Amino acid sequence: MTDLPLLPLPLAGEPASERSDAARNRAALLCSAQALVAQCGVEDVTMDAVAAHAGVGKGTVFRRFGSRAGLMVALLDQNESHWQAQVISGPPPLGPDAPPWDRLEAFGRSRLETTILHGDLLRAAGAAGSRSAPAVTFVVQHVQHLLRELGVTGDVRLLATALMAPLEIGVLDELRTKGIDTERVIHGWLDLARRIVGGC
Amino acid sequence: MTDLPLLPLPLAGEPASERSDAARNRAALLCSAQALVAQCGVEDVTMDAVAAHAGVGKGTVFRRFGSRAGLMVALLDQNESHWQAQVISGPPPLGPDAPPWDRLEAFGRSRLETTILHGDLLRAAGAAGSRSAPAVTFVVQHVQHLLRELGVTGDVRLLATALMAPLEIGVLDELRTKGIDTERVIHGWLDLARRIVGGC
Repeated sequence: MTDLPLLPLPLAGEPASERSDAARNRAALLCSAQALVAQCGVEDVTMDAVAAHAGVGKGTVFRRFGSRAGLMVALLDQNESHWQAQVISGPPPLGPDAPPWDRLEAFGRSRLETTILHGDLLRAAGAAGSRSAPAVTFVVQHVQHLLRELGVTGDVRLLATALMAPLEIGVLDELRTKGIDTERVIHGWLDLARRIVGGC
Repeated sequence: MTDLPLLPLPLAGEPASERSDAARNRAALLCSAQALVAQCGVEDVTMDAVAAHAGVGKGTVFRRFGSRAGLMVALLDQNESHWQAQVISGPPPLGPDAPPWDRLEAFGRSRLETTILHGDLLRAAGAAGSRSAPAVTFVVQHVQHLLRELGVTGDVRLLATALMAPLEIGVLDELRTKGIDTERVIHGWLDLARRIVGGC
């Protein structure tokens, strides 16, 4: 647990117009929520608990995030921002300065790992365990870029979407109930990626 | 609107132990729900409305389906049963007696169309717009079978899952918000299928 609220990086496409004190309050609430998630797990994180931890009224938490699902979406967005920073400027092969195939492989592995890590948050965020639209856009644009660098032609936008769809939490949950482990999933995903890259 | 309740075909893996009068009552309630969906759309179908239409108390509807989401899942399962019957014994190329590639193409198109047709139901059914586990199992097993007939080797279970993941409602909704139409989606899906089949 830390007392220093980390200001989240802006997600691609997010309006940067929030007033700075409001942004600080929001970051403090998210920090409390993050700490509670780490302490107790997503299930036990209530709006009351976040308000008490941050020393504000429950109404403030509701005004900021609308609902518990809204708070979970905000937490997810914050985690996405940190992960996106690794992709944009972190060490290779996830970050730049590695061959495109190595980056794609690292990206798939890393996406799978973060999705599993944030599985409870994704489920608690509601509708379709969905990430925010900017989060989806970032993933698809990055994969599009790597596929183009690998010489893939055709409707690369749709191929990028198709390549990432099997790593969404709903599909991963279904595979896990069938006893298919993470290593097998990533192995299958790499086979899929090779077929998409090779078949152009 | 029809007064003849259609008894749903049992989904693969569904226990067939329901007593026949209970099954008839359930079918009658589903028929009412289906008629109301056709009349007013999914949004306006309440447990009260279904009870009134079927001439029973609201408690009966709740006892049968647990919740509104449970009713939507049951409606989806009924629709899935009809669709599965088309795949198992309907006319080719969706049904048997067509070459495996033609069946796969027809299967993808038909799955896309039924998912869009039942989009509101899938969203109303809640968690991840998810279908029942037997429904997912049917789709994956059928695609596995066709991929094997087409000579695909490797982890065909995972390739089948990956091939169908981009046709789930969450992905289709995201593509639609980006202005990508159904014809482009199916075109991209066929390209994906060709890469999976050709790249083995």
